[in-house]
Amino acid sequence: MTGFVSFVSSGPGDPDLLTLKAVDRLKRADAVLFDDLSSGPILAHARRGADLVGVGKRAGRNSPKQDHVSRLLVDYARLDQRVVRLKSGDSGVFGRLEEEIVALKAEGIPYEIIPGVPSANAAAAAAGIPLTRRLTARRVQYITGHDVTGALPEDVNMAALADPAATTVVFMGKRTFPQLAARLIDAGLPPATPAILAEAVSRPEQKISRHTVATLSDLLAQESSDHPALILYGSLADT
Amino acid sequence: MTGFVSFVSSGPGDPDLLTLKAVDRLKRADAVLFDDLSSGPILAHARRGADLVGVGKRAGRNSPKQDHVSRLLVDYARLDQRVVRLKSGDSGVFGRLEEEIVALKAEGIPYEIIPGVPSANAAAAAAGIPLTRRLTARRVQYITGHDVTGALPEDVNMAALADPAATTVVFMGKRTFPQLAARLIDAGLPPATPAILAEAVSRPEQKISRHTVATLSDLLAQESSDHPALILYGSLADT
Repeated sequence: MTGFVSFVSSGPGDPDLLTLKAVDRLKRADAVLFDDLSSGPILAHARRGADLVGVGKRAGRNSPKQDHVSRLLVDYARLDQRVVRLKSGDSGVFGRLEEEIVALKAEGIPYEIIPGVPSANAAAAAAGIPLTRRLTARRVQYITGHDVTGALPEDVNMAALADPAATTVVFMGKRTFPQLAARLIDAGLPPATPAILAEAVSRPEQKISRHTVATLSDLLAQESSDHPALILYGSLADT
Repeated sequence: MTGFVSFVSSGPGDPDLLTLKAVDRLKRADAVLFDDLSSGPILAHARRGADLVGVGKRAGRNSPKQDHVSRLLVDYARLDQRVVRLKSGDSGVFGRLEEEIVALKAEGIPYEIIPGVPSANAAAAAAGIPLTRRLTARRVQYITGHDVTGALPEDVNMAALADPAATTVVFMGKRTFPQLAARLIDAGLPPATPAILAEAVSRPEQKISRHTVATLSDLLAQESSDHPALILYGSLADT
């Protein structure tokens, strides 16, 4: 069997934030399994004739179950295909990568992981600021704003998250942020801690706005949309 | 004045992990100020005739002071040059980016930040594992193993770092890891917590090895070398 799977990180959305290695793997793929966030112009790098298979969530459609995606990956690889599994941001960050690796290993299918630009790092860059600061933000952390049920995870480490000397990036946390903010403030994080809402990072419709943890919480409590967004808070530079 | 500075993230070292945007900025630069870690084949993308200025630390030489680097940046931009400031990994992570931005802003010099592949994400990819896991590692954090004096920072948040339900990546922490490990274990982190030592990530001489927090601490206590390396510990996948 010569099938092979490349987990390719597509970066935050701007096709120019693909790595050279990601472009190479796309060009050589027989099949590309992609999530919606990583689609569009990025898929233009695939060769004509390659199978392009959307496996992401889409409004108004049921999203394929994770085990269905894993089965597709295995099936394509068993046909001796070069398969690219495209994942947005960096594939190792909140990308359900482990489940797919476990499925491949169970079948003895070889794989590689091509790292990419995490959307968190692209969000900070778009805001014109670093994620770390020499004396005041020597720790960066990424968390997810929802668990598999869609709720704010219960078992979060509040001592870690309510630390004003870290930069925290919340993935997929717009809807649950008011709840998280209340817990952070209860745990001692100053309500005036700087916060940034970064929507559609690196895309034409990108929107970056500055708030405090308290004002962003108020704003998001009014909003019903759940467009992809990242929230940064902590000792953010004001440059 | 038409000078402009692009802070370009070069990724972990493999030139194929440059983004398309990074390559574009290198091709169009009049001057490239680079650290040693981000040099070599990556600089081959610069056009002939561009100034290539090494400003990183090098064994046996004094490293230029940070304010000297900032002054160089300002001087080149004032000559109406397109300047690329190349930084290894993602420029926003432990890259002293803020100091250089502050210097540019003081002079009214415009800049952009091109995000890149952080070496932490490349290390996990090289080890064949994700940084997050659905139930057991829903938080990822990056810390630095030394402060400006070279010592382990004193003010670390032990509740955050001794959390077995996070994946922690220690940058530049090989020399101080035995000291950190002792504090982590004192704070309740199980000594058998999985750990990975990732050296020269994405380079030809890359070396990835698996340990526990306790055995890696013992190993590094014997070692005197301080080659660039990352340490990952926590609920690491064993795939």
